[in-house]
Amino acid sequence: MKILEKYISLLDRNLQNTVPIKDPQHLYEPINYMISIGGKRIRPALTLMAADFISGNYMQALPAAMAVELFHNFSLIHDDIMDDAPLRRGHTTVHEKWNINTGILSGDAMLILAYRLFEQYESPKFRDLAILFSETALQVCEGQQRDMDFEKRDQVSFEEYIKMIEQKTAVLVGAALQMGAIVADAAKHEQKIMYEFGRNLGIAFQLQDDYLDAFGDPETFGKQVGGDIIANKKTILFIMTEKMGNVSQAKELLYLYNTIPEDPSHKIEGVKKLFEESGAVAATKELIENYSSRAYAFLEEMNLSADKKSQFRKFGEDLMRRQI
Amino acid sequence: MKILEKYISLLDRNLQNTVPIKDPQHLYEPINYMISIGGKRIRPALTLMAADFISGNYMQALPAAMAVELFHNFSLIHDDIMDDAPLRRGHTTVHEKWNINTGILSGDAMLILAYRLFEQYESPKFRDLAILFSETALQVCEGQQRDMDFEKRDQVSFEEYIKMIEQKTAVLVGAALQMGAIVADAAKHEQKIMYEFGRNLGIAFQLQDDYLDAFGDPETFGKQVGGDIIANKKTILFIMTEKMGNVSQAKELLYLYNTIPEDPSHKIEGVKKLFEESGAVAATKELIENYSSRAYAFLEEMNLSADKKSQFRKFGEDLMRRQI
Repeated sequence: MKILEKYISLLDRNLQNTVPIKDPQHLYEPINYMISIGGKRIRPALTLMAADFISGNYMQALPAAMAVELFHNFSLIHDDIMDDAPLRRGHTTVHEKWNINTGILSGDAMLILAYRLFEQYESPKFRDLAILFSETALQVCEGQQRDMDFEKRDQVSFEEYIKMIEQKTAVLVGAALQMGAIVADAAKHEQKIMYEFGRNLGIAFQLQDDYLDAFGDPETFGKQVGGDIIANKKTILFIMTEKMGNVSQAKELLYLYNTIPEDPSHKIEGVKKLFEESGAVAATKELIENYSSRAYAFLEEMNLSADKKSQFRKFGEDLMRRQI
Repeated sequence: MKILEKYISLLDRNLQNTVPIKDPQHLYEPINYMISIGGKRIRPALTLMAADFISGNYMQALPAAMAVELFHNFSLIHDDIMDDAPLRRGHTTVHEKWNINTGILSGDAMLILAYRLFEQYESPKFRDLAILFSETALQVCEGQQRDMDFEKRDQVSFEEYIKMIEQKTAVLVGAALQMGAIVADAAKHEQKIMYEFGRNLGIAFQLQDDYLDAFGDPETFGKQVGGDIIANKKTILFIMTEKMGNVSQAKELLYLYNTIPEDPSHKIEGVKKLFEESGAVAATKELIENYSSRAYAFLEEMNLSADKKSQFRKFGEDLMRRQI
C-alpha cells in the first residue's frame, strides 16, 4: 500500500533519532540496535493512518506512534529472553548479542522511554494516551503469561486461547489505532470503534498466522511452514482438533504431538491430515472470517468517507494475505 | 519516629489490596509476594509525610506513595535477577522462588501497575506525577547500568561513583518527596526544594551505607560487616583510597581486592587499615557531612513551620543512624 510507505518511511527516519546512543552506552546501544534491525512498523503506521484519516494531520501522531513501536520492541526483547530465542528479524537477539541482564534492563528503559513520548502531548490528551497505554501494556503482559502457562498444560480451551491471543497481540493493534484517534481529537465513541476494528483484526490476523504456519505457501509465508507442528505448539488448529475431532483423532493428535522425529515431514503430514479431517481447518477459516467481518463492521460505523474506509479495509485484507 | 509508624501502617494495610492475586495467577502471585515480604516503606512514607506537612492531607497522596513503593519493588525484582541474589529481606527472591521468566514478566507488570496508580489523579496533576516518575525511573535504570559497568572496570572515578549512587538510589528519594508536594499542590519552586532535600539525603545515606558496611556496629548494621570488602565492591571507601592513597597503599589495596581468602578476617582488617591510613575514611565522613548539610539547607528553604522542618530533620538523622 502506497500510503503505508509514507508513514513507514517517516517512522524509520524518526525512530533512529528517538533513542540516541549516550551514556551509559550499554543501556542505550541495545535499544538503538533493536530499533535499527527493522520490523514492519505496522502498529505505529496504524496510529499515523488513523490520525491522518480523522484529522488530516498525521505528524501530530508521530510521538504516539513511536511510543507504540518502542513498547512493541520492549516486549519483543523481554519475550525473546523468556523464549530463549536466538534470532529476531534475522538478527541476533539482544540477550544473545549482549547478555540477559542487558536485555532485562534495556527493555525496562525502553518501556519507560515509550511512556515519555506521550509527554509531547498536553493534558488531558496526555492522560488519555497514558491510560490506554498502561491498560494495553498490562494486557500484553497477561497474554504473555497465559502463553507461557499454556505450554505447560495439556489442555487449553478455545475461549482461553482466544483470550490469550487477544491480549498478547490484538489489543495493541486496537490501541495503536485508538491512539491515532485520540491525538486527532475523535469523539470517545469513535475512538472505541477504531479500537474494536483493530482488536478484531488483530485476532483474525493471529488465527490466520496459525493457519498459514501449517497450510501457507512456503514461498510467501516467510517462516518455516510446519514450524508450530514441529514445536508441538498448541495453536488454534490443535485446539479445534481436540475440541471437534473424534476420540481416535484426538488420541492420534496427542500421540504425534509427543514425538520429536528427526525428519518431521511425516509428523507434519499426519497432523495436517487430522487438522483437516476433524473439521478444525474449516472451523478456523470460519473464525478468521468472523473476526474479519466483525472488524469491517466496526469500520463501517466510523465517521469516515467511503474512500478512507476502503483504504482501511484494503489494509486489513493485505495484512491477512501477508502482502504487507 | 511515631509519625512514620502512622504512614507505614497505612501503607502496609493498603499495599496488600493494591495488587490482588487474580488470573493469570503466575503473573500476580509474585507481585503480591514481593509486596507482602515487607520492606521499610521509607520512600512511600516520605511521599505521605511531604503531603501531610504541606497540605495536612496525606490520604490524597496514598496512590502516589504506593506507586513509589511498587516501582521500588519492581526494580528490586529485576536487580535481584541481574545480581543473581538468592535472598531479599530474608526471603527467597522472586526469580529463585519461581524462575527468571516470572521475575522478568511480573516485574514488567509491576512497573506498569505503578504508572496506573497515578490514574487516580486528574490532569494536570496526573501529568506532573507521571513525568517526574518516568524521569526518575529512567535514571534508576541508568544507575543500575553504571553499577553493573563498574563491576567490570578497574578504575571508577569519584564523580562517576557519586553519579551512580545518585541515579540508583537518591533520585527516587527526591522524587518520593516531590510527589507528595505535587499532590499537596505545592508551588513548583517548593516541589524542587523537596526534591533536592531528598536527593542530597539519599546520596548521604548511600555513602553512609558504604561506610557502615566496613565500620558499622555488627549489632545494629543489619548486614554482614565487611561484606563489601569480601565481595571486592568498589565503594566510596575503595575509590577514595585509590584517589588519596600513596602508590604503595593503592597497590596493596588492589592486591587485597584480588584475593578471595577462605577466612576473610585478615583481608577485611588489611583493607580497613588502608581505608583509614589513606585518609579515605575521613574524606568519606566529610562527604556524608556535606551532603547531609546540603539536604538540611534545602529543608530550611521550605515554606514549613519550624516544628515540621525539625521533624523532617529528625527523620534524616534517624535514617543516617539506622534507627529507622
